[in-house]
Amino acid sequence: MNFSITQQTKHFGGTVMKMIHKSNTLNTENQPFNLFLPPTGDDATLQIPLLIFLAGLTSSADEALEKSNLNQSAAKHGLAVLYPDTSPRGTNLPGEHDLIEVGSSAGFYVDATAEPWSNHYNMETYITEELSLLVFRKFPQLDSSRVGICGHSMGGHGALTLYFKHPEKYKSLSALSPLCSPIHSPIGEKAFLEYFKSKEEWFQHDSIELIKKYKGPELHILFSIGTEDQFKKILNLENFVQVAAAFGYEKQIEVITFDGYDHFYLYVSTVAQYHVEHAAKYLFA
Amino acid sequence: MNFSITQQTKHFGGTVMKMIHKSNTLNTENQPFNLFLPPTGDDATLQIPLLIFLAGLTSSADEALEKSNLNQSAAKHGLAVLYPDTSPRGTNLPGEHDLIEVGSSAGFYVDATAEPWSNHYNMETYITEELSLLVFRKFPQLDSSRVGICGHSMGGHGALTLYFKHPEKYKSLSALSPLCSPIHSPIGEKAFLEYFKSKEEWFQHDSIELIKKYKGPELHILFSIGTEDQFKKILNLENFVQVAAAFGYEKQIEVITFDGYDHFYLYVSTVAQYHVEHAAKYLFA
Repeated sequence: MNFSITQQTKHFGGTVMKMIHKSNTLNTENQPFNLFLPPTGDDATLQIPLLIFLAGLTSSADEALEKSNLNQSAAKHGLAVLYPDTSPRGTNLPGEHDLIEVGSSAGFYVDATAEPWSNHYNMETYITEELSLLVFRKFPQLDSSRVGICGHSMGGHGALTLYFKHPEKYKSLSALSPLCSPIHSPIGEKAFLEYFKSKEEWFQHDSIELIKKYKGPELHILFSIGTEDQFKKILNLENFVQVAAAFGYEKQIEVITFDGYDHFYLYVSTVAQYHVEHAAKYLFA
Repeated sequence: MNFSITQQTKHFGGTVMKMIHKSNTLNTENQPFNLFLPPTGDDATLQIPLLIFLAGLTSSADEALEKSNLNQSAAKHGLAVLYPDTSPRGTNLPGEHDLIEVGSSAGFYVDATAEPWSNHYNMETYITEELSLLVFRKFPQLDSSRVGICGHSMGGHGALTLYFKHPEKYKSLSALSPLCSPIHSPIGEKAFLEYFKSKEEWFQHDSIELIKKYKGPELHILFSIGTEDQFKKILNLENFVQVAAAFGYEKQIEVITFDGYDHFYLYVSTVAQYHVEHAAKYLFA
């Protein structure tokens, strides 16, 4: 199996590794991802919980690593953080690098069913299966039974939908300014029209649709959002909360609003601490 | 005067403003810079000290703002942080965007004397005079009598040389992995050959040369460096410390070494807190 650590350094007392691997799911030769191990990462007597962070549209594993500020809090709480990339890399499908909402750095954390995307854009299976398996095999100090998931914007959509579809895999869930209903947003529609053969498939990748049918353990979802979020109208967070309440989840959802904050990484770096704390609460429960 | 705030948002409870202005010194129409005001920034009864952060080669005002992690500590200590850009922007000199060590995102915080660079690359006067004057005029809550300077890599060279040449302007000084002797490093030589008419001018922009002739208040310089710094050999920090000691400054210099850290922004974001604390100590003295 083609796997290598391309860079390793310290960060807030822990260790950052940048890696590439051959992905069978994405059909890519050198798929990048990053991992942060907390300062306790070398203690062979510990099993370390893992938080997966899914980045937003146009972002990447490297940008999330350098700008999200998650590692600082993760170091304090003793959590590892996994940064998958936002899409397959090294591919060259027609229009892939020009279609902002569909191609490189998009991906929406779904398995595409329509050609040509279905040859590579299988981010759901990649995140929930292949990459997790790889990471737990390569880093036995990580505890595969204590994994949390969170994400920002398109990555918030990813965290919500992957959790609702695979609740047995994750023990914590939170989302920063998530795109809650891609099927009711212009960017989500653009992507899903390309990725899927039929509109019926869209409903399987929409948090508002998925929570209506959710069957799994009690939810504890933390949301954060800035009052000056430029994309507030298309995120549909309020709609999600209303629908969730109607289905009986009102008390299982917390929304923290940040006055004056917008949608981007300065906001993410400010609120990261709350999301790490939330994950730690359930991963160390 | 052409000046505008292009973006404003919150960060760690304070306020970030991205701005552009017409610079007469750099001869540029839309020179960008960023400013962080701490949470106390709106308190009209306070005068807020300012820390200037000079970023490294290939970096920018935006990258420093988003990756340095200075604002988090500055918010705690009640400091404002000014992020000038690393070079003139919007210019198009021959080879400017290809000469990594000389053109865009370089600049070395010097006033060039050789054509064509001298038409734009006047970063020393820009930082020490024009930009400071602009910022204190536009933000009267900032205290022009309490300004500190620090920088990373090429920006560390900038902080050291500008302080040694203008000690009356700054009340604190620190540097992260600074390029201490550009005239004894391949990248500095490349830049200075382009910027200056004669080699004699080089000595006026080299920290090791400048500290030999330093005349000013007692120094309190904080340095940090990672043991895995890829550029350790060309930074000449040890040489600087030796020369400074020979000239009687041994007790006025502190070097903190960070085990396992490299040269880049993950390191910067980890050590930022120490540099902000150092600045606060002297700016609130």
